[in-house]
Amino acid sequence: MSSDLAGRDLLARVEELISDDLVQADACFRTELQSWHPYVTDVLQHATQYRGKRLRPILLLTAASACGAINERHHVLAAVVEMIHTATLVHDDVLDDATTRRHVATVNARWNNETSVLCGDYLFTHAFHLTSSLGDATICRLIGRATNMICEGELSQIHERGNLDLNEDTYFRIINGKTAELCALSSFLGSYLSDQDEPLNTGLQEYGRLLGMAFQVTDDLIDILGDENQTGKSLGTDFKKQKLTLPIIRLMSQVEPPERGLLREILGRPNEHTWSEIQPFLDRTDAVEYAQQRASRFAADARKQLSGLPNSAGKTILEDLTEFACRRAS
Amino acid sequence: MSSDLAGRDLLARVEELISDDLVQADACFRTELQSWHPYVTDVLQHATQYRGKRLRPILLLTAASACGAINERHHVLAAVVEMIHTATLVHDDVLDDATTRRHVATVNARWNNETSVLCGDYLFTHAFHLTSSLGDATICRLIGRATNMICEGELSQIHERGNLDLNEDTYFRIINGKTAELCALSSFLGSYLSDQDEPLNTGLQEYGRLLGMAFQVTDDLIDILGDENQTGKSLGTDFKKQKLTLPIIRLMSQVEPPERGLLREILGRPNEHTWSEIQPFLDRTDAVEYAQQRASRFAADARKQLSGLPNSAGKTILEDLTEFACRRAS
Repeated sequence: MSSDLAGRDLLARVEELISDDLVQADACFRTELQSWHPYVTDVLQHATQYRGKRLRPILLLTAASACGAINERHHVLAAVVEMIHTATLVHDDVLDDATTRRHVATVNARWNNETSVLCGDYLFTHAFHLTSSLGDATICRLIGRATNMICEGELSQIHERGNLDLNEDTYFRIINGKTAELCALSSFLGSYLSDQDEPLNTGLQEYGRLLGMAFQVTDDLIDILGDENQTGKSLGTDFKKQKLTLPIIRLMSQVEPPERGLLREILGRPNEHTWSEIQPFLDRTDAVEYAQQRASRFAADARKQLSGLPNSAGKTILEDLTEFACRRAS
Repeated sequence: MSSDLAGRDLLARVEELISDDLVQADACFRTELQSWHPYVTDVLQHATQYRGKRLRPILLLTAASACGAINERHHVLAAVVEMIHTATLVHDDVLDDATTRRHVATVNARWNNETSVLCGDYLFTHAFHLTSSLGDATICRLIGRATNMICEGELSQIHERGNLDLNEDTYFRIINGKTAELCALSSFLGSYLSDQDEPLNTGLQEYGRLLGMAFQVTDDLIDILGDENQTGKSLGTDFKKQKLTLPIIRLMSQVEPPERGLLREILGRPNEHTWSEIQPFLDRTDAVEYAQQRASRFAADARKQLSGLPNSAGKTILEDLTEFACRRAS
């Protein structure tokens, strides 16, 4: 089966298991975003159209299903994690000066940068408000901590932009903050709100973290390998932003000094040719394979964390998500 | 006594009453803002230098003193309200493309816009994280709600920019969100964490809200009246941003159609002459006096809310703050 078909099959099973719950989480997301001022409501509702894979709510609800049963609190928190993710997207778009996201005009393009910054702030703060409506200070603390780590990861990434000596450790620490932390929290909350015991909660938290790492490394690979028509994303955007990712970090460590100097020159002055200039180097080294294997190892380690769960449709989906994380093309 | 001297006397009494507590709140603010990445720590520590009047922590701690005694939780929440206020300043600076704030380079000027947006996000999310460390879900909810209302107020203000038909009700609703809400929460928390009963908590919340309204109307007046050398702020910045404030809303309602048309023309194409072109209109109407009286009424109403408090140095400061709110020149 092609990776795309496998992805479609997985999605069908997700729909079968939790489609009603996704609808409820989605309704909660939309219903919450209302204001006394019609303009504020318009802006917030616009941002809810940035619908992607909904990885985080799917993780939370599937973990909940695999841990027992899904309850109303799961729906609320599935809306919360999607709201936080949307807040980061809205702010990413203003920073990147992006005009469209998922075939919808960005908030900054449709209105202006001020509206975009404040819309992201509203989503962040509303996610916290919604969380606190559950009356559980522990969950408030976890949400506060995770959102903080996302900002920390993104800030570090900005600082390391253009640093051609970035090492793997720092790279992993950055993607752990900006991507894996919210995935870890999502699957943890699925288990925690099903009143599971500590080891299972921790296992699911680690599962989400490792899955998030696999997803991010694969995302970084798609940026330099993917078929632009298929993904709908421009390729080589990480080069343009001088963002070093795992295949390039590996590449830099695999070439000898004279070539390394040439590579530094190419990466140091990014333009529309960078992507094609880098390709021959990638073909001659194990850089791509190395990153693919690292993503696969994260995914395999994620899968191992599920051993404590009884067999269920939810567990199978969580397992299959680990393969999907590495095999998808977009 | 001149308004400036009165302000200095008040500040001396604030220092006498809560200087140790302000130091502890400040230490909490700074100690919290640390990251594994030295760059993130640098950026966050830089933002802590945006020290202004510290109105919100002073309100919280003085209210706490007037309600009984100040405890450690008050220090933490005084740091939280200052952190939220700082987050809004950092984002305001990126939106205004400002280069200095309180004689310090802005985050966007010292680094870049991306860093500034993410630094504000970090401060917002860390304020939540710090709040949740107290383990009280009610306080989490109040902080979530207040930050949400700030964003809502600011978003509405952006939308109403250039709307020369803005009415008083909408203006008051906007400043209630963007300024008064966090003041209301600050004085409420001072009382709430001193285990006071509901009526006193509500009274202090209303006190903070009305005081915040008086402060904001006065701020808007300073923008069109103040002595630039004394305030250190440029005058007429609200005109430049096409932000209608109370004196101008009043002015528009006081002039007859032909003059109103002229005013609309002047306000509709803001430039360096706008301020001086508007002055004659202000001199001929009651617009300034009307706004001053409105600020005084908010302040007097704020003072009335304190009637349930026993006499104390804290209560006297809260009372005198209501006069300071309207009389200050910066």
